[in-house]
Amino acid sequence: MTTTTTLSARDTAFVRDFHTMSEFGATANGGVDRQAASIPDGQQRQWLKELLEAKGFTVKFDRAGNEWGLFEAVPGAPYVVVGSHMDSQPTAGRYDGAYGVLAAAHAAFRLVEKWGASGPDGQPKFNIAVVNWFNEEGSRFKPSMMGSSVYTGKLELETALATTDAVGVTVRDALDAIGCRGDYEGPEAAYCAEIHIEQGRSMEREGITIGLVHSNWAANKYEFVVHGEQAHTGSTVIADRKDALLGASMLVVAARELADKFPGVLHTSVGQLNVYPNSPVVVPSRVNLLLDLRSADEAVLAEADALLHRRIAEIERLANIMVERNHSHSWPVTPYQPEGVELAAKVAADLGLTSKQVMTLAGHDSTNMKDLVPTVMLFVPSVDGISHNEHEYTTDEDIVAGLAMLTEVVNRLCNGVLED
Amino acid sequence: MTTTTTLSARDTAFVRDFHTMSEFGATANGGVDRQAASIPDGQQRQWLKELLEAKGFTVKFDRAGNEWGLFEAVPGAPYVVVGSHMDSQPTAGRYDGAYGVLAAAHAAFRLVEKWGASGPDGQPKFNIAVVNWFNEEGSRFKPSMMGSSVYTGKLELETALATTDAVGVTVRDALDAIGCRGDYEGPEAAYCAEIHIEQGRSMEREGITIGLVHSNWAANKYEFVVHGEQAHTGSTVIADRKDALLGASMLVVAARELADKFPGVLHTSVGQLNVYPNSPVVVPSRVNLLLDLRSADEAVLAEADALLHRRIAEIERLANIMVERNHSHSWPVTPYQPEGVELAAKVAADLGLTSKQVMTLAGHDSTNMKDLVPTVMLFVPSVDGISHNEHEYTTDEDIVAGLAMLTEVVNRLCNGVLED
Repeated sequence: MTTTTTLSARDTAFVRDFHTMSEFGATANGGVDRQAASIPDGQQRQWLKELLEAKGFTVKFDRAGNEWGLFEAVPGAPYVVVGSHMDSQPTAGRYDGAYGVLAAAHAAFRLVEKWGASGPDGQPKFNIAVVNWFNEEGSRFKPSMMGSSVYTGKLELETALATTDAVGVTVRDALDAIGCRGDYEGPEAAYCAEIHIEQGRSMEREGITIGLVHSNWAANKYEFVVHGEQAHTGSTVIADRKDALLGASMLVVAARELADKFPGVLHTSVGQLNVYPNSPVVVPSRVNLLLDLRSADEAVLAEADALLHRRIAEIERLANIMVERNHSHSWPVTPYQPEGVELAAKVAADLGLTSKQVMTLAGHDSTNMKDLVPTVMLFVPSVDGISHNEHEYTTDEDIVAGLAMLTEVVNRLCNGVLED
Repeated sequence: MTTTTTLSARDTAFVRDFHTMSEFGATANGGVDRQAASIPDGQQRQWLKELLEAKGFTVKFDRAGNEWGLFEAVPGAPYVVVGSHMDSQPTAGRYDGAYGVLAAAHAAFRLVEKWGASGPDGQPKFNIAVVNWFNEEGSRFKPSMMGSSVYTGKLELETALATTDAVGVTVRDALDAIGCRGDYEGPEAAYCAEIHIEQGRSMEREGITIGLVHSNWAANKYEFVVHGEQAHTGSTVIADRKDALLGASMLVVAARELADKFPGVLHTSVGQLNVYPNSPVVVPSRVNLLLDLRSADEAVLAEADALLHRRIAEIERLANIMVERNHSHSWPVTPYQPEGVELAAKVAADLGLTSKQVMTLAGHDSTNMKDLVPTVMLFVPSVDGISHNEHEYTTDEDIVAGLAMLTEVVNRLCNGVLED
C-alpha cells in the first residue's frame, strides 16, 4: 500500500475531485467539520449536484433530504443504488462517508461512459442511482443513519423531520435552509453497494486492500439520564449530596470495565455527556449521557448488558442518585447477503486485489439497505485505524483501488449477475 | 424557628420587598435564574437603584460593575460597607446573596431614619454604603467573587473586564449591555458587614438563629484538561483508545473517594465538566473540568491534595490520557477579625437571639473584604441545608431576625464601637 503508482488519467480526476470535495468544511488540521444540513454540507451537496448533472445525471432531493443522482439507461427498470454519506462528525476526517459518495459517482460515470460506447448488447439490465444519504453521522440530529432509515421505512418521515438539534432547529427547517428538502420519494432499488474506510486496523495490519463485509456487530445503545439534586459544592456535607455527575462518572467507568471483562469482543463507550447546571460551585442535578455496547457475539452482548444493569443498580445506591433509561436502540448481528459477499470476492480476485471477509463494527447506511435489497459492502484500509479524527487517512492507491473494485461490482450488479 | 410571629410594619415591608425582588429571573419551581449581567440581573439592579434613591441614597456603579448605594451622614468620613450579591447560579434559590443585599438596604434605611430623627449626639462616626457586588457566583464569568476581588485589589480591573463567558461575551460588554459599568472607584471602607444564609444544616439542627462566622475553610480549586484522542466509539479497538471522558470520569470518582477518606472534614466536588466533541459515536478527545477540595484543616487539605495528584498520575496511565492542570486557585483558612465576632456575639445576646460561632465552607465577598477592613460575617439558617437549588428556603422569622441583627451590628460599627 505504500508503493508509488502512476495513476491513470481517470484515477487522477477522481483524486482531484476528492481534494476539491475535502475543501467543504475543511478544518485547519486537515480534517472536516460538515455536520448534517450545516452550511458546508449544503454547499457540498450543491457541488455534487453540479458534478452529477455535468455527466448527464438527473439530481433529485427526496423528502428526507437524501440526494439522488439518477441515470436511466433502461427505461422503467429498477436501480442499483450506490453511495454513502457526505455529512461528518464535528472535526472529523475527510474519508468517512464522503469517499464512498464520490467513488459511487465516479463508478457511475465510468459505467455510463461504457454503456454509451457499447452497442445494444452492452446495455445493463438495471439503472444506476448515486446516493448521498442525509445525516448518517447523527451528531447534530439523532438517530444516525437517518436518511437511509426513512428510505428503507425504518423511521417515519415526520419523526425524522421533527427531530431537533441541540439549539432546537428541526431537520425540516435545517434541510429547507440549505435547499435540500425535496418531494421525491427515491427510486425503486434492486441492489445496493457501498464502499467505506475500514475505521480499524485489521486490513492494514494484514496488507489487505479490499474488505468484504459479511455482517455487522450487534449493538445496544442507551440514553441514560442520571438524576441528582442541586447543592452547594462547598457547603453541602458529602452525606447529603445527590451528585448526578458522580453517578454518571461511575457509569462511564463501569462501561470501560465491562469492555475489559470481555477483551477484544466487546466495545463500550460514552461519547456524549451533558451536565446540568454545569456551574463551578453547584453539585450537578442532572447528567444525560449516551452509552453503547457492541459485540460480534450476541451472547457476550447479552451478558454484558445484564452486568451493566446490575452495576447501575449499585451505582444508584452508592452515589445516591437515580438512573433513568430514557431511550434504547438495539440491533442484532445481521448478515449481508452471502451472494453479494461472494460476488465481491470474485471481483477482487478478477481485479487482482487482495481481499478478506470482515465484519463492520460501525453502522453504515448499507446496514439499513441490506434489509431491503441484496447489498454489497466494501472496505478500504484506514492508516493506523484512525477514525472520527482529523488525521483519518487512506492512501491514494487504496482509494483508487476501491473505486475500481466498486465500479466492477456495480457493473455486474447492473448486468444482473445476482438475478438467478 | 417554626413559630408564627406577627411581623412589625417595617419587617412586613422588608418581606414584601423580598418577594418583589425574587420576581427578577423567577423560575417556575420557585427559584431564580439571574446570572451575572444577564437581563434579569440588570433589571434587578435598576430596581435596587430606585429603591435606594427613594430613601435618599446616591447610587453609583463602579468600574467593575459593583452597585453602591451611598449615604453620607458625616461629610468626608469613610464608610461602613454592607451588602452581598444579587447574581445567582442558573436555577438557584431566592435567598443566596440577594437576601444579604436587601437586608443591607433595609438596615441602612432604618439607621438613616434613626439618624434623621436624632439630634447632633445621635449622629454616627462613619457613613454607610450598601453594596451589590458584581458576579459573586462565577457561573457565567470565572472567577467567582469578581466584583469584590477588583474592589479589594486582588484582581486587576482589566483582567476582570476582559473575562469572557461560554459564548465569548466579555464582562465589559455584558456590563455595558445592562448599563452597569460606571467610572466610580468605590467608597473608602472602614468596616464591612455581610449577612447570608448558612447553606448547611448545622444551625437549623441546633436551633440557632444567628451564625457568627469566625473563619473560612481552606480550598484548592483546579481546572483540569484531560487530553485524549478522537476515535470511533464503535470500530476503534479498546486498546487503541485514548478516551478523555474515561480519564475525566475517573477523576470525578477519585475526588469523591478522597472525601470519603476524610469523612466530615474534606469536601470535594466537580461541578462543571465539558466534553469535546461530545458526539454520540466519537471517543472524546478533550474534557475540561473544575475540581475543588475544601477543608477546615489545612493539613488535611494538603494531604488530600497530594493523594489527588498521585491518583492523577495513575489515571493518566490507566486511561491512556494526559491530564493538564490549567489553572489553580487556593486560599488558606483565614480568620474574620475576632473583635468583629465578639461584637456580633454581644449584639445577638442584646437582641435575645441564639447564636454560635461557625465557619463558612463557601466563599463570600466578605472573605475578600476581611483582608481589607475588619469585617463581620453573619449567617441565618437554611432549611434542610438546601443551597444552590430552587428549593433553598429560610423562614420569614429568620430573615427578619437576621435583618434586626445586621441593623444593630452596622449601627454599632457606624458608631465606631471597634475604633479602640
